[in-house]
Amino acid sequence: MVWNEVFEIEEIDIFGRRGKLYTRRGVVETPTLTPVINPSRQIISAKRIKEIGFPMLITNSYIIKRNYGDLAKELTVHGILGVDGPVYTDSGAYQLLVYGKVEVSPLEIFTYQIEIGSDVGVILDIPTRRETPFQQARAEVEETLKRLREAAQVDRKGMLLVAPIQGGVHTSLVAYSARQASQIPADLYAVGGPTQFMEEYDYEEVVRLVMTARLNLPWGAPLHLFGAGHPLILPLAVAMGVDVFDSASYALYARNNRIITSRGTLRLQDVEELPCSCPVCSKYTARELRELPSQERVELIALHNLYVIWEEIKRIKQAIHEGRLWELVEEKARAHPALTNAFREFLRYSEFFAKIHPSTRSNPRGIFFLGAPSRYRPEVVRHVNRLKTRYKSRSDILILFEETPQKPFTRFGLIKEFLTNAMSILSEYDVAVISPAFSIIPVELDGFYPLSQYEASRLVFEEAKDEILADVVWFILNKAYRGVVLAYYSLPSKFVRKMGNKLRDEGVIFMEVSLPSYEKALSEHEKTSKKILDAVAILKGMITRDRQEALSP
Amino acid sequence: MVWNEVFEIEEIDIFGRRGKLYTRRGVVETPTLTPVINPSRQIISAKRIKEIGFPMLITNSYIIKRNYGDLAKELTVHGILGVDGPVYTDSGAYQLLVYGKVEVSPLEIFTYQIEIGSDVGVILDIPTRRETPFQQARAEVEETLKRLREAAQVDRKGMLLVAPIQGGVHTSLVAYSARQASQIPADLYAVGGPTQFMEEYDYEEVVRLVMTARLNLPWGAPLHLFGAGHPLILPLAVAMGVDVFDSASYALYARNNRIITSRGTLRLQDVEELPCSCPVCSKYTARELRELPSQERVELIALHNLYVIWEEIKRIKQAIHEGRLWELVEEKARAHPALTNAFREFLRYSEFFAKIHPSTRSNPRGIFFLGAPSRYRPEVVRHVNRLKTRYKSRSDILILFEETPQKPFTRFGLIKEFLTNAMSILSEYDVAVISPAFSIIPVELDGFYPLSQYEASRLVFEEAKDEILADVVWFILNKAYRGVVLAYYSLPSKFVRKMGNKLRDEGVIFMEVSLPSYEKALSEHEKTSKKILDAVAILKGMITRDRQEALSP
Repeated sequence: MVWNEVFEIEEIDIFGRRGKLYTRRGVVETPTLTPVINPSRQIISAKRIKEIGFPMLITNSYIIKRNYGDLAKELTVHGILGVDGPVYTDSGAYQLLVYGKVEVSPLEIFTYQIEIGSDVGVILDIPTRRETPFQQARAEVEETLKRLREAAQVDRKGMLLVAPIQGGVHTSLVAYSARQASQIPADLYAVGGPTQFMEEYDYEEVVRLVMTARLNLPWGAPLHLFGAGHPLILPLAVAMGVDVFDSASYALYARNNRIITSRGTLRLQDVEELPCSCPVCSKYTARELRELPSQERVELIALHNLYVIWEEIKRIKQAIHEGRLWELVEEKARAHPALTNAFREFLRYSEFFAKIHPSTRSNPRGIFFLGAPSRYRPEVVRHVNRLKTRYKSRSDILILFEETPQKPFTRFGLIKEFLTNAMSILSEYDVAVISPAFSIIPVELDGFYPLSQYEASRLVFEEAKDEILADVVWFILNKAYRGVVLAYYSLPSKFVRKMGNKLRDEGVIFMEVSLPSYEKALSEHEKTSKKILDAVAILKGMITRDRQEALSP
Repeated sequence: MVWNEVFEIEEIDIFGRRGKLYTRRGVVETPTLTPVINPSRQIISAKRIKEIGFPMLITNSYIIKRNYGDLAKELTVHGILGVDGPVYTDSGAYQLLVYGKVEVSPLEIFTYQIEIGSDVGVILDIPTRRETPFQQARAEVEETLKRLREAAQVDRKGMLLVAPIQGGVHTSLVAYSARQASQIPADLYAVGGPTQFMEEYDYEEVVRLVMTARLNLPWGAPLHLFGAGHPLILPLAVAMGVDVFDSASYALYARNNRIITSRGTLRLQDVEELPCSCPVCSKYTARELRELPSQERVELIALHNLYVIWEEIKRIKQAIHEGRLWELVEEKARAHPALTNAFREFLRYSEFFAKIHPSTRSNPRGIFFLGAPSRYRPEVVRHVNRLKTRYKSRSDILILFEETPQKPFTRFGLIKEFLTNAMSILSEYDVAVISPAFSIIPVELDGFYPLSQYEASRLVFEEAKDEILADVVWFILNKAYRGVVLAYYSLPSKFVRKMGNKLRDEGVIFMEVSLPSYEKALSEHEKTSKKILDAVAILKGMITRDRQEALSP
């Protein structure tokens, strides 16, 4: 799938993508972050930044115009930065946000980017502030769209066009902005305005903003999230389908003696042990850094910050490659309460993720369930939807097992022994497993990935027992079972009692077979099977009697 | 506090300690990991390992004895390894575990360690296997203790003595072993036997083993956990009070082309992006590593693995320094289901942690509440215990507020306004806050750290609402309030209804004041205060009437 001949998606995980952005100066592998280079003052040289691994840089055409004017057309932006590879230019919208105005016309600064040889250029859009009222925000969004339409007419001489999406907290405007921009032949889209939310630690709002934009833009198009670059937010943002980030934080933080880590930010004054193994952290101690002259210290911290950001990008790419982006996002969600809240907001979009997330992998791996939120994984949503729409019961009796430690259930452990002890069982009855991860797994489906390739912590059941119970009861009622035998060995009696009550209230006959420990039930599996089958026989008798009574005049 | 003149604890967080171990060849800062050096085959030279930062190395005196015999007494262990600093020697117990026997007597190998100049030496103990039955395990523990008593009689010429604690899954034996060993003048203690549990991913068992040993050993004594060295388990182990680790995993994993990361292990064949910024990962790509000759590749992976392990140690030390070890442990608990289970087991010891964890800090920081497990933090346990034992109500009416976003409650936001609007309120009534983190905070305590210095994610309330409700009801009943007014703006109505029912069942008069949004309640705070005080007045009338009725004949 190639978007507009410029973007190719190679691997997908949740909404995250590993892709290739084709610029005239080379291919940029995504997701990526483009460090912001100040054209008049490079704390770390553009060349050194590229050596770390960053394939593309971003600089500000508005500042170049003010400093170099027409001379930059001869020098070119690459000449000014001293690099060969792809260079992205911003238009001065950030200056507009900070200073309220810029001294250049929108079309002028757009064509200027073409003239100085930028590889990716953006129009001068109007960033929506949080406090901008709806009417004004709408007018600004319309103005941004008008400028975009104008820019799209210009001969770009190979420069890629970025279409900014604005609207901020007004999600209906974000959606409108995205849908309108989708009509205009742009190469990349960029969500604007998260900086303010990020500064307020309102990551929930970032999730709403990005998801609204992403869902209203063409899936194949690359998406840039303006002004977000802290490793803390990167995995979540990529999981929402962001491909490109930019950030000046490595330098801004360094100037304030702030050291970025994957989990947050440290003030150098509080640091006893430098946080990583980058060339800076493995050469200096925190004390040595503190004692250096200011300029040298800022340079070294900035260099460290760049290494940490790049490491996070690498980690994300590797996670997508392995199909473990969910794990990365979920672990990171526990790094800061604001991020936990954002993750919670992210879970609301799980139905959408299930539509895109790949259902198979060339190299399938076990997936992890760490707590209740893991149950929003696309694999679970898809499984439950399949049970809803496509699973048909074949019997009016369901034999339910508590999940066993050995999987696949039909091939190892107690359930396999049960099915082997009573060969005809599956032709007469339905058999399913209560799973903390997937709520309910009919055993004949246990060969489908990942229904036998998961590991769940004990917290999952403890945190989600009400939801699991509701799902199990829903399944039994929806599939119209008349009787249920539950074989269990460690389910809490309260859970079993509740389940029984709910089912009996709905007229389902419920029988429980309480087994000793799993090990014992397994070692005495013939006895265990007999116990269960005895219960099934009684149940069957009751159902037949019920039926006869119902038929009797 | 200096233990035995060899160990000094400098900072404490949970049960984690930053300390100094004084050996005759220099001070070792703890927590630390001592990489295992094979005396006959150093994949990475001992010198290079020390350059990474590891202050102490460990090698195997049994292998030295077999390879060098008496010659090693001249060469010394330092000469053989080619390093100057502290060297720890193991005794061959691992070989005993793997091969079932060793060809040396316990006393012989112990004195040999002294003779080759080891700085820290251990007796030849008998590691308890998981499958060893209790009686045999007990006999082996007694034998280990006997050897320890013998060794303690030997003139050690400055070598520190390590006392191994065994017992494995038999926690009563572990406790016995630890208590008996505490009677013997050793310099360090070492918990044996986790390797088997680690290999089976049974981290819960590791928690039981370590906690049992730690609680039965002198708090001031340094503790070594034998054979555990994966970054995944390190923060949790340190939080349980482990000071020293050893591990050969950097080399063993490297030989199998396995790359250690802070979050797990990758097979080189699956790696697209090398995981960190260490000298290896920032110089090579994964593909380049794969294409190198085997020996060179193993060396580079081993070097990377060492950097990652050391980075984890640095991260832990920094976390203890900042008082953020809980945050590190809790985040990491979401890296693997087995670790989540271990963390859950760890939470069972929260009463013990509350006894040791420092109650104040020179540089107090906000603490994070990410989900229900955060409520087991020592700060919460201590707060609840204080409420139980030391808090006395001063009124028979309690005014309860839902937590407000602004803290401290008495100084900012709605509660402050309420208290200011009705100046005499605190002299007449008790006022408290329902907090997702601390369950209940009487407002007059909100100046105590960290009752106003915390941030809680929305998940905390959602995951722990039953526990929070139980705590609030317990508080009201235990402090014998006769009436409660609850002012809230976003608590779920189900929560409020349940609370009302439980209180009314116990004869407490309950009135609720449902406020509009927090912002509205705050901006109209005079109106809000009046609403609450009106409810209080009605409540007061009802209580007085009740009392008069009770008194009337």
